[in-house]
Amino acid sequence: MAVTVQGAAPADLEPLHEVAQQIRIDGIRASTRAGSGHPTSSMSAADLITVLAGRHLRYDFAHPKLATNDHLIFSKGHASPLLYAFYKACGAIDDAELMTYRTYGSRLQGHPTPILPWVDVATGSLGQGLPIGVGVALAGKYLDRLPYHVWVLCGDSELAEGSVWEALDKAAHYGLDNLTVIADVNRLGQRGETEFGWNLEAYRLRVEAFGCRALVIDGHNLQQIDGAYVDALETAGRPTVILARTIKGKGFSEVEDKEGWHGVVLPPEMAERAIKELGGERDLRLEVRKPQRGVPAIKAEKVEVTLPTYSLGEKVPTRKAYGDALAAIGARPEVVALDAEVSNSTHADEFKKAHPDRFFEMWIAEQQMISAAVGVQVRGYTTFASTFAAFFARAYDFIRMAAISQADLRLCGSHAGSEIGADGPSQMALEDLAALRAIHGSTVLYPSDAVSTAKLVAEMADRPGISYLRTTRNGYPVIYDNAEAFPIGGAKVLRRSDSDRAAVVAAGVTVHSALAAADRLASEGINARVIDCYSVKPIAAEVLAEAARDCGGILVVVEDHYPEGGLGAAVMEALAGSEHPPRIFHLAVRDVPGSGRTADLLAAEGIDADAIVTAARDAAKTRGGS
Amino acid sequence: MAVTVQGAAPADLEPLHEVAQQIRIDGIRASTRAGSGHPTSSMSAADLITVLAGRHLRYDFAHPKLATNDHLIFSKGHASPLLYAFYKACGAIDDAELMTYRTYGSRLQGHPTPILPWVDVATGSLGQGLPIGVGVALAGKYLDRLPYHVWVLCGDSELAEGSVWEALDKAAHYGLDNLTVIADVNRLGQRGETEFGWNLEAYRLRVEAFGCRALVIDGHNLQQIDGAYVDALETAGRPTVILARTIKGKGFSEVEDKEGWHGVVLPPEMAERAIKELGGERDLRLEVRKPQRGVPAIKAEKVEVTLPTYSLGEKVPTRKAYGDALAAIGARPEVVALDAEVSNSTHADEFKKAHPDRFFEMWIAEQQMISAAVGVQVRGYTTFASTFAAFFARAYDFIRMAAISQADLRLCGSHAGSEIGADGPSQMALEDLAALRAIHGSTVLYPSDAVSTAKLVAEMADRPGISYLRTTRNGYPVIYDNAEAFPIGGAKVLRRSDSDRAAVVAAGVTVHSALAAADRLASEGINARVIDCYSVKPIAAEVLAEAARDCGGILVVVEDHYPEGGLGAAVMEALAGSEHPPRIFHLAVRDVPGSGRTADLLAAEGIDADAIVTAARDAAKTRGGS
Repeated sequence: MAVTVQGAAPADLEPLHEVAQQIRIDGIRASTRAGSGHPTSSMSAADLITVLAGRHLRYDFAHPKLATNDHLIFSKGHASPLLYAFYKACGAIDDAELMTYRTYGSRLQGHPTPILPWVDVATGSLGQGLPIGVGVALAGKYLDRLPYHVWVLCGDSELAEGSVWEALDKAAHYGLDNLTVIADVNRLGQRGETEFGWNLEAYRLRVEAFGCRALVIDGHNLQQIDGAYVDALETAGRPTVILARTIKGKGFSEVEDKEGWHGVVLPPEMAERAIKELGGERDLRLEVRKPQRGVPAIKAEKVEVTLPTYSLGEKVPTRKAYGDALAAIGARPEVVALDAEVSNSTHADEFKKAHPDRFFEMWIAEQQMISAAVGVQVRGYTTFASTFAAFFARAYDFIRMAAISQADLRLCGSHAGSEIGADGPSQMALEDLAALRAIHGSTVLYPSDAVSTAKLVAEMADRPGISYLRTTRNGYPVIYDNAEAFPIGGAKVLRRSDSDRAAVVAAGVTVHSALAAADRLASEGINARVIDCYSVKPIAAEVLAEAARDCGGILVVVEDHYPEGGLGAAVMEALAGSEHPPRIFHLAVRDVPGSGRTADLLAAEGIDADAIVTAARDAAKTRGGS
Repeated sequence: MAVTVQGAAPADLEPLHEVAQQIRIDGIRASTRAGSGHPTSSMSAADLITVLAGRHLRYDFAHPKLATNDHLIFSKGHASPLLYAFYKACGAIDDAELMTYRTYGSRLQGHPTPILPWVDVATGSLGQGLPIGVGVALAGKYLDRLPYHVWVLCGDSELAEGSVWEALDKAAHYGLDNLTVIADVNRLGQRGETEFGWNLEAYRLRVEAFGCRALVIDGHNLQQIDGAYVDALETAGRPTVILARTIKGKGFSEVEDKEGWHGVVLPPEMAERAIKELGGERDLRLEVRKPQRGVPAIKAEKVEVTLPTYSLGEKVPTRKAYGDALAAIGARPEVVALDAEVSNSTHADEFKKAHPDRFFEMWIAEQQMISAAVGVQVRGYTTFASTFAAFFARAYDFIRMAAISQADLRLCGSHAGSEIGADGPSQMALEDLAALRAIHGSTVLYPSDAVSTAKLVAEMADRPGISYLRTTRNGYPVIYDNAEAFPIGGAKVLRRSDSDRAAVVAAGVTVHSALAAADRLASEGINARVIDCYSVKPIAAEVLAEAARDCGGILVVVEDHYPEGGLGAAVMEALAGSEHPPRIFHLAVRDVPGSGRTADLLAAEGIDADAIVTAARDAAKTRGGS
């Protein structure tokens, strides 16, 4: 039986109640079958989702990439039984697939991921779905300029995450009336009552103080739910947050509003009683209204991009080259940039000046910046986000989740390493290479000059997955001709002879130290190979292996990063499986640096030309056995 | 000349104006001399800090460790010229030292760190000082039970960080009337106006909605400032946030309220004009009132701790052993635990049951959890914090900064790796070893059974720096006798013979796979050494080197973690510098796992016993050349 209850007129919502009961039952069936999952967290929101889908959502399940589709994001990703049972009610999946929930190889994972075509992004780390929804809504209002609506289902526990308030703040700031948050306030978190229980007034005050419209409703009263959605769709100029008082486990009296049932499935005999109390299994079909057709205001184009060029020897900070290149790539209409209130330092402001309509200021809210970038790329835009390299640490969980979301994201972290000098360690990224390398499928780049930076920025634009560019604060000489290519995964051999007695692997600022060291070594009669390992991941394993072979099985690796997990580890990981792994002399930052001039800090940390000369001499000696 | 303006009675505050002018001038002098720094951000808050110090702060600069001292945290760490000029005015440092600002080797770094005895924690990553202040205030109210006050100076830009709202939420929840936030609303961020400019009403609504008292004042009117502090100190039951309207660059008309002067020093000739306009250099001394003496309610004691014991073969999740051991260690009165609303999963609830007065629930606010832990340890408590291993990523920037703060922090991350099974990748920490290893001075532990877990938890209690324990969701057999010791930095050789033909290095769950693999290999006539590398950092380099020597220079490393930066990298980093680095066959998680049974996932990722058998066979073959 198909249930169709559409239109804005007051409707008989009883058929939707029946669908909601079916969805509750199916969520119980799937989770009990799986032996794990969150049925009670799903039951509390079943009425909210069913009324939304039956009356207001506009979505074409057959065409999930349709530009005009609404977006429904489960920020409370653990309510996956609800999501999947809803998909079944819509005919997107069948009951047999529903029963594969949480089994190996199934698309129906414990928390939703974009392996399912109707899921925009992975959720399950709480407080992320809403900030990402803000990004999708930004795209809808300012880029696509299409009337789709973004609906985000949140749990009440996750409202404790600061990221939720960053999100509401930006949603209000950008006037995102195309965003509606549905907060399922079922009072109970994982281990007992939430901080506010059913004190919806506390939430209302906060939501309104953050500039959003708040509607407080009974989340099981279908008329109230319907009215709230009508209200939300009619609200202009600001987002709406529907604060719905709900009952965890709603519909099955044995678990309703009871502690101890979070993430706990009903044992089979209990599930049977629940299904009975919920009125028995049904086979109702929910008709979701399809959206009108429409075309985004921005269309991706293969535009010829003219990258900036630089003169050999000219001192240019790589962060400046990032800004220059980004502005140039902005000739492509689908390129979008975000920054966290430091665009004059990261030089993202070059893009902002050139393409103000496609630049989003996120102020000092790095979590929201990453989330917004993820949301914007959901709509197909080529998205760059920048801040100080150190401050991507603030959003590490969001980057981790973006990888699970299969997001294409381009990050630029400026002011990396002890090289920054006077500002001190709080501003020095010294663990970013390790952290970003460990992100699944990531690309990690650390160029040494402006030319290579510009080329790599251009490649990032077309790179799938999460790519990270590390830039340097101070200016260093341009060492490459503008005609050179810098393929991701490559490396440049900057010094090379038939009689190399040592090989130095460097990246970023240490390339310049390595070149200076090589010159001094040459004057001592020691030829040293110098490798610019601008692509840290993937790394040019063959170039490294060749250097090791040519230079007596010893490599000197020098990096402006802590010793763990950075460039040194990348080199080791690339070569450790080879038949004769090289010996690595590893120069890295071993203390917490203080403030000071760059030269003093690089010297103190043992990563300057002096240190390289010494290490390369040792390597040459060891090799020669002399 | 000494300036003393104390007591609660209305006072002639003019002498404090003179001190504030001196502080402005000294901030300008220091930053102009250094050639970098944030003088204008310091000038806006000079009146706020001077009135605080001259009238309300209770602090003994000669005894910074005094239990009853107030705490003053500069959440806007870039206002270091103000902080250091204030220290000079108090006689804590002299002018010669002030003039070393930002130079190599100076204690006066670009952003404050605890290298200075009066600085509790490093700041400079915005939005962290306030959440840490919440932790200090928690210690004051609930642990020390001493009447000291925590004062936190915030900038307005950082109010965009979600962590600020997590902090105010918890401050209100815990009724922290011993906490006063001084928000220096100077309207201008780094690259222009902040989101709210001088709309103090917007901030007031938010602060009050989050349960705090808000006072809006003119931050340059000394009487209003003084009155606000009196009010704050008299306010019972909730924290106070003073929203002070200030002018960036206040006191020097050429830069007052002007854009383009953030983080920009005055050139020498401009500095001269500024000093003149500010009334010329002074040598005033600010008398800060000393606190009354008092003794904390909790005194650290060398209590005999009886760790839990387990039976060989008993299946116990290591997360359960964490909870058991933590509860046992709680016999020491200085041990404190925090959790982010998952204590029934991490098993921190065992501690909560045993020692409810020393357990702090932080709900789902991981940033605040880490910050509160840092704040509590400022007061000397032995602090543990737990959540799912994956969700420490949410607080990575806070952990990074905690290392710069020289904090002693003990973290336990449960549910690590693909081992968790059905919940899917959002809940699987697969990059935590890389991220946590890269934290300066960190300790990273990953035990395989309950006995070793309990022993390591006990060692963590006395471990300086940041230590991280990775625990496993499911139960695995106890493999160690309760009498065994597990020194940090050690490893256990679980299988060993004179004829070992391969060596398997494992940790946590993969130890059990390795043991199963060794048994199967033995039945094929291949003796394989098995090493439980429970201490990932520091790592037992000698044990690994010996295994490599004994087993033909080949190690098989197997880990439930992405290939970058984890156990494999730790092994490589330990041995890559040796004369003949071993060849590493590295088994790690190479895809984003889905949901499924643990066994299916470990098999799919190639880190189960089958995979180890194959790798060890290959290793043995390679070695034998057969």
